[in-house]
Amino acid sequence: MRNDLPVDGDRLWADVMALAELTDPAQPYTRRSFSPRFLDGRAWLARRLAEAGLKVRIDAGGNLIGRREGSDPTRGTIMLGSHSDTVPSGGRFDGIAGVIAALEVVRSLGNDKPRHAIEVVDFLAEEPSEYGLSCVGSRAMSGYLDPGMLEYTNADGEKLGDAIDRVGGATRDLAQARRSDIAAFLELHIEQGIVLESGNIDLGLVTAIVGIARLEIIFKGAADHAGTTPMTLRHDAGVAAARTIALVSDSASALAASGQGHFVATAGVLTFEPNAANVVPGRARVVFDIRAEDHALATVFIDELDRESARLAAATHVGRSRVALLSNTTPAACDPGLRALLAQSAEALGFSTIPLASGAGHDAAFVSRIAPSAMLFVPCRGGKSHAPEEWAEPDALAAGAAVLREAVLRLEMTAPERG
Amino acid sequence: MRNDLPVDGDRLWADVMALAELTDPAQPYTRRSFSPRFLDGRAWLARRLAEAGLKVRIDAGGNLIGRREGSDPTRGTIMLGSHSDTVPSGGRFDGIAGVIAALEVVRSLGNDKPRHAIEVVDFLAEEPSEYGLSCVGSRAMSGYLDPGMLEYTNADGEKLGDAIDRVGGATRDLAQARRSDIAAFLELHIEQGIVLESGNIDLGLVTAIVGIARLEIIFKGAADHAGTTPMTLRHDAGVAAARTIALVSDSASALAASGQGHFVATAGVLTFEPNAANVVPGRARVVFDIRAEDHALATVFIDELDRESARLAAATHVGRSRVALLSNTTPAACDPGLRALLAQSAEALGFSTIPLASGAGHDAAFVSRIAPSAMLFVPCRGGKSHAPEEWAEPDALAAGAAVLREAVLRLEMTAPERG
Repeated sequence: MRNDLPVDGDRLWADVMALAELTDPAQPYTRRSFSPRFLDGRAWLARRLAEAGLKVRIDAGGNLIGRREGSDPTRGTIMLGSHSDTVPSGGRFDGIAGVIAALEVVRSLGNDKPRHAIEVVDFLAEEPSEYGLSCVGSRAMSGYLDPGMLEYTNADGEKLGDAIDRVGGATRDLAQARRSDIAAFLELHIEQGIVLESGNIDLGLVTAIVGIARLEIIFKGAADHAGTTPMTLRHDAGVAAARTIALVSDSASALAASGQGHFVATAGVLTFEPNAANVVPGRARVVFDIRAEDHALATVFIDELDRESARLAAATHVGRSRVALLSNTTPAACDPGLRALLAQSAEALGFSTIPLASGAGHDAAFVSRIAPSAMLFVPCRGGKSHAPEEWAEPDALAAGAAVLREAVLRLEMTAPERG
Repeated sequence: MRNDLPVDGDRLWADVMALAELTDPAQPYTRRSFSPRFLDGRAWLARRLAEAGLKVRIDAGGNLIGRREGSDPTRGTIMLGSHSDTVPSGGRFDGIAGVIAALEVVRSLGNDKPRHAIEVVDFLAEEPSEYGLSCVGSRAMSGYLDPGMLEYTNADGEKLGDAIDRVGGATRDLAQARRSDIAAFLELHIEQGIVLESGNIDLGLVTAIVGIARLEIIFKGAADHAGTTPMTLRHDAGVAAARTIALVSDSASALAASGQGHFVATAGVLTFEPNAANVVPGRARVVFDIRAEDHALATVFIDELDRESARLAAATHVGRSRVALLSNTTPAACDPGLRALLAQSAEALGFSTIPLASGAGHDAAFVSRIAPSAMLFVPCRGGKSHAPEEWAEPDALAAGAAVLREAVLRLEMTAPERG
């Protein structure tokens, strides 16, 4: 590890590992949003934020925030952070690295009062939650958590709104989560791809974050006996879902090869009911995840998926009891000024950088709608993410945190904006 | 209801409803084998058997048995019964009707000592259990519960053998469940099809029970990020499973139409892992259920499914971490002598009958390997089974029980077999 950096790389690494190890032991590394394990992680994180001298609170949207007040209220807040929740059997860096890097930046800046207020944020439920929604906390902060979304339920029937309140939010005062004081938001994250690794580049400067749509389709057939129901008389919801998934894979592959930018579509969630070997599936629920740099392309794809799934369902003698666009975000461009600032900061510290698009969604995509926002990617081994083998080097995390710190100092030194 | 029958149809109906209502209230009608609710049902049933003057025990294979001793030990045992477990969201008659009809026959015969011993049996786990196996109790009784099957585990990792012991069995003495004293086994069951209803026939005389194979395939890919992993670099286990399910539906439909007897194939169980919207499925488990009157046809189909699933997996850049024939029973013919006896009994009581094959598996298929066995079908509305709307008329159940009783009396009057 370079020993000339103004951040403590060992302390940073130790804290990433300490938070990551607060996992469901049967399924490392799992800390699902809203779960008891997630709350364990947040309690640990709240202590660390307090130890760093920050004032800790949970906002109305359920975001955990540590704040150091600034000396010049006209300058607003510099916000740094990411999220501490994981997918099932996820990794130790996705989200966590950004939260702990933010903490380390604040620690390394010492206790002198800055001009800007500085906040470290752990956004609630960035990963798709059990309630069918991702980026719950950053949606709330940017005003994109619609009242209808609060009614989404998990498998136990708990509403998302109730779950947010259960972890410390206050959804009846949800508007209080919305912010207008953020002067800059910077998020460090692992790349989750192989561009940096394969190019031997230290850090990535994100140009834009893809738009992400989630389309839920529930196929509704009849749960008949698998032995006595002839093939010709079946209403097999599972077969309708399977045919649709196969078609989506084919057409997404064709679109991805068509040269219209990054395009992917995935059926990650599929559940059969009753899911018994001798019963024809009476119900099959699929959630499709569709991501595109070109928003128009995603819109056309979703329309076609709606039509084609209806056609395949009819051909299989089943219906669709639900077709719902659970979410549909537009691509988000990172702030040009902050991108330049990050580039200059990296250069000043001797790190190589490259501009690249993010195929993954991030809280920064929502925050960018209310404040200048930018992201810094650190390389991850083999591009592997959302898996136990997810890995980032200690050096890479320290480099990223050092660049974040340098960017904060440069923001502090700029002349205040005159309204 | 005909009031000249020698069974108490009201008592029979009331007991069917009473047992059926011991259900998971959130998911009627569910009483999964090995569950606390299942044990509630068995406790209720054991009391009813004891009230009828029967000696109640659980055999080494976990079957609940009520026995009345006979006066002539050389005549062996007449066994009547079925099963009390259900599929998830199943019905009130599948299995239950046969157990309660058997109880009603014994009650209606009074307390005089019969020549044969008479037993009422509730076979353990006739429906596919959480351990991936059906007909657990009748397999044990007939010697077809292999030691390897005792190692099957449920989602919590509990072994089937431990589960059998937990509900009162004794798998270290499993051979003690095997019987050589059964002179006749008769099982009443709902048809689970529409032949009787559409022909307005009172009762069905089963000619044969289809062979049933269960093939488990686990597709193993890579749980990569659904946003950053290009379509060309994916190892999507879910897509491989979906393509295989679509192919099975197509080829089973073609075989069913080919005039080679009853043939059906179903993918009733499918689970994705990690089953999160933004993760490419790294693992997909499918259980196929394949049923044929012609065993050779099933064998050819299973071989082709093995080959084709390997081809589709390779084309999708995924592997298969498991391909296992969980079970594979041969078709079972019902005993001609007992079929004739049931026909004569029905005729004597004025009920119309028709011979028909069973597309569903039953405990009688296993018992037929060690003793003369036959089945009696009662009509069920619309052929619906394994669903909450499953329905049989009180009259139909009373007619079936009366025919069973008549058959038992005729067996009692036959001259004993001379060895």
